[in-house]
Amino acid sequence: MKLVVTGTIGIDTVHTPRASREGVSGGSAAYFAAAASRLGPVGVVAVVGGDWPKEHEAILRGFPGLCLSGLESRAQSRTFAWGGRYLEDANSRETLFTEVGVLQESPPRVPDSYREAEFIFLGNTHPAVQLGFLEQFPNRKLVVADTMDLWIRTAHGELMSLFKKVDGVIINDSEAAELTGMRNAVSCGQKVLDFGPKFVVVKKGEHGAILIHPEGRAVLPAFPVEEPQVVDPTGAGDSFAGGFMGYLARENRGDFKALQTAMAYGTVLASFTLESFGLDRLRAIEPGEIDRRMRHFQQAARVG
Amino acid sequence: MKLVVTGTIGIDTVHTPRASREGVSGGSAAYFAAAASRLGPVGVVAVVGGDWPKEHEAILRGFPGLCLSGLESRAQSRTFAWGGRYLEDANSRETLFTEVGVLQESPPRVPDSYREAEFIFLGNTHPAVQLGFLEQFPNRKLVVADTMDLWIRTAHGELMSLFKKVDGVIINDSEAAELTGMRNAVSCGQKVLDFGPKFVVVKKGEHGAILIHPEGRAVLPAFPVEEPQVVDPTGAGDSFAGGFMGYLARENRGDFKALQTAMAYGTVLASFTLESFGLDRLRAIEPGEIDRRMRHFQQAARVG
Repeated sequence: MKLVVTGTIGIDTVHTPRASREGVSGGSAAYFAAAASRLGPVGVVAVVGGDWPKEHEAILRGFPGLCLSGLESRAQSRTFAWGGRYLEDANSRETLFTEVGVLQESPPRVPDSYREAEFIFLGNTHPAVQLGFLEQFPNRKLVVADTMDLWIRTAHGELMSLFKKVDGVIINDSEAAELTGMRNAVSCGQKVLDFGPKFVVVKKGEHGAILIHPEGRAVLPAFPVEEPQVVDPTGAGDSFAGGFMGYLARENRGDFKALQTAMAYGTVLASFTLESFGLDRLRAIEPGEIDRRMRHFQQAARVG
Repeated sequence: MKLVVTGTIGIDTVHTPRASREGVSGGSAAYFAAAASRLGPVGVVAVVGGDWPKEHEAILRGFPGLCLSGLESRAQSRTFAWGGRYLEDANSRETLFTEVGVLQESPPRVPDSYREAEFIFLGNTHPAVQLGFLEQFPNRKLVVADTMDLWIRTAHGELMSLFKKVDGVIINDSEAAELTGMRNAVSCGQKVLDFGPKFVVVKKGEHGAILIHPEGRAVLPAFPVEEPQVVDPTGAGDSFAGGFMGYLARENRGDFKALQTAMAYGTVLASFTLESFGLDRLRAIEPGEIDRRMRHFQQAARVG
């Protein structure tokens, strides 16, 4: 297994201005792996409780190349659950509830079959846990971490230790602002580089993403979608990361040019995710559809 | 004169989080024409009062290709003056004062030497006045209009009449949202097309711009600049329009592909403007510098 993601598998409740859904198959590792698996094999390290719906497992097993050898199920525990509501502005949402459940227990262990993994994505969790995962991959070539405002506030020291050990950080613009005290996305990214990683990707939701790297900067708009196509933005950021890492693992690269192209794949995979609740649209991707959307994106975002 | 802009020449007072300046050479027509003149000749139709500083005239006359034959000076009137303050978020500002002065009098007349103009930019003013300007260009091939929230609220009927007669509308995202009651920039632009124009450009400031056209959509990020480089965003939107129209006039085109490239030129010209107060940075552009920045932008915004 060349690419592995550590993160959450969860049960989501989502309210959008137009519809609501309960019991949606969610979690950062689910969205990441579903997107990445569209480009190549990916292994999941996560833990669920005894209440995890069989249908959710069937959904994940339906993605060819998505490996669940690293998924631990603990019968006496409860699966992570999250509920959120999107405002008219698809870029802003409020969390209605978070039931951490099994996430407050010891983290899942990395199975032996994953130990050779070279491309590692450390989904958002306590940075000390992310560090623990990282050290279980002796052959790691490219490690990228996500984080969130909670750890920026409550585990700053551990987060800084983590940043010194990873190759890249993928972070959204509001978290980057909180972390650096700056606002401009380029300046934020530049500042995060000082903390240790070799590159930073700042995600701006519907406004695209920016890559800050010692060799240069790359900027991309989001894929241009109209409001009616945006059914549910949940997981778009994790799908971006999945497309990004999936491309790098497939190409076995981590140089600036590859990172730039990986951002475009991330953007395209994210554009599928938000067209449905949960993993439905990622599941329905047809052969050739990613390439077609990449070409469409290349045409729409052509510069001069 | 192939390209003509109608708009304001004004005296600006600008406060940014880092510095303040009074008596800055400003106005939509000034920024537009200064930017457009970097790509080819452009004529200005505007009116100033007797108090217009000689130094401001010297600044404008310093741009080769910028023609002031259509600039009327009315000794007894006062020049339009505007004061604004930028918040930490360079994308938001508050207006401190607006002294309309000579703008409340009859509009300037279009000089005979401009009557052959084919590319016309109608800078923001009352839409009835924009319509009056438009009709003075019998050879118009491509007319593009700007507008603002005030006219959306107070002159909606005239604005709709204007939109039926122009080829394109350049509008910022908050105005597009106010005009359409929608929020997603693509949806807003699509809706504005229903009002009559052949294409719409929605400007999103530091988040780039979107072109909506019957033949397709184009999306561009902004040029990636760090906070310290952003000295004063005033006039960036007008400079974008100037670069956009300057390119189209130079190439004598108005097709989708040309509009897409024109957006990139607009983005690059705007990126110069915000590096200084007033027209200083546009004035200091060196030979080859626009082409270099275009290549830099092409590399930074490459998709896959």
